[in-house]
Amino acid sequence: MRISELSAASGTPVSTIKYYLREGLVERGEPTAANQAAYGDEHLRRLRLIRALTDVGGVGIAEVRAVLEALAKPRTPIHRTIGVAQYALGPPEDDGPVPADVLQARAEVDAFITARCWNVHADAPARRMLADALVTLRRLGQEATTGLFEPYADIVDELAVWELGILPAQGSRSAIIEGAIVGTVVFEAALAALRRLAHEHHSAERFGRS
Amino acid sequence: MRISELSAASGTPVSTIKYYLREGLVERGEPTAANQAAYGDEHLRRLRLIRALTDVGGVGIAEVRAVLEALAKPRTPIHRTIGVAQYALGPPEDDGPVPADVLQARAEVDAFITARCWNVHADAPARRMLADALVTLRRLGQEATTGLFEPYADIVDELAVWELGILPAQGSRSAIIEGAIVGTVVFEAALAALRRLAHEHHSAERFGRS
Repeated sequence: MRISELSAASGTPVSTIKYYLREGLVERGEPTAANQAAYGDEHLRRLRLIRALTDVGGVGIAEVRAVLEALAKPRTPIHRTIGVAQYALGPPEDDGPVPADVLQARAEVDAFITARCWNVHADAPARRMLADALVTLRRLGQEATTGLFEPYADIVDELAVWELGILPAQGSRSAIIEGAIVGTVVFEAALAALRRLAHEHHSAERFGRS
Repeated sequence: MRISELSAASGTPVSTIKYYLREGLVERGEPTAANQAAYGDEHLRRLRLIRALTDVGGVGIAEVRAVLEALAKPRTPIHRTIGVAQYALGPPEDDGPVPADVLQARAEVDAFITARCWNVHADAPARRMLADALVTLRRLGQEATTGLFEPYADIVDELAVWELGILPAQGSRSAIIEGAIVGTVVFEAALAALRRLAHEHHSAERFGRS
C-alpha cells in the first residue's frame, strides 16, 4: 500500500509516519517510483505498536526506540525484551540527590517485595513508582505503610497470572513480545479507567449530594 | 515559616513555589518585611496537594487550577468536587473528528457501564479512556470485546468500596475532598506499579530464560 493508505489504515498522520521513517522507528517501504514506496502489513503492525506505546502508554520516542531495538535482537530473551518495554514506562532514573524519606520508602518497598517472594530486578522502575506513592501519602500527613498495598498486591498477583495466560503462548517471538507489551500498557490503562468509573459510582453513593 | 522553609518542608523548589504564587495556585503569605512573607500549614498542605496531582497524577497546571477552584467553592457538593479532580486526569476532550471504530467502542463501553448499573456521568473521561484501550487492542488485530474487562470491573468495584471506606468520613470538607483526590491519584499509581511488579515476576516464571 502507499503511505497515504498506511496512514488511513493505522490512523497515523502521514507527517507522523514520515517522522518515524526519518527516526528509523519504521523501516522504509519498497521503492516503486521516485518519491514513492510500497508498505506492507509489517509496517502497519509496527505503526500500531508504536501508537499503543505512545498514545496509551504515554511513552516517549527515545523509549519507543529502546523497545524496538530490544525487539530487533533475536538473541535477547523474551523475558528481557518485555522488561525493556516495561522499564521504558518509567519513572525515569534519579537525576539528583534522593531525599531521606524517599530512600526510606524504597527500602520498605524492597522489603515488601522480598516478603512476597516476587522475583523482580533490583532496578525495576516500578519499585521507585510504588515508593513515590508511599512518600506522597506520608508527606500529605497520612500514616501509610506498605501494609496498605497488601490487598492490591494479592489482586494483581492473580490478575498477572490470568493476563499472561491469555497471551498467545504459541506464535512468533515478536507476536508474543508485542502481545505482552501491549497487554501491559493497554490493560494498565483499562484498569485505571475502570477504577475511576467505579470510584465515581461509589463516591456518588457514599457522599450523595452532600 | 519563610519561603525557604516552606520549600524544604514540601520538597518544592523556591522557584516553583514562586511560580505557583504568581499563578494564584498558592495564596500569598502574611507580609513580614519588604520581600518577605510568613507561610503556614495551610500553604504546606496546598503545596503537597499540588505536587500529588502534578508529580504522581501527571496533571497539568490548568487542571490543577480547576481542582483548586472547585475546592474553593464551599457550595459545590463533595461528590462534584471529587469529580472535577478525577476528570482533570483526562484524557482531554476530542479535538477533531472521531474515527468510526472509536465511536463504536465508546457505544460498547457505555452499554457495558449501563449493564453494570454504574452511575457515572455521560461525559466522564474514563469512558473514553476505556474505549481507547478497546480500540488499541482491535487495531492491533485482537478480537477484543468489553467482556475482557469484566474481571477487572469486579475487582475495582470491590476495591472502590474498600478505598472509599478508609477515607476520613469525618473532618472538614476540604480534608475529605483532598483525601479522595489523593487517594484516586496515588492508589492508581500504586496499583499500576504493583501490577508491573507482578507481571515481571510471573513473566519470568512463564517465559523463563526463553
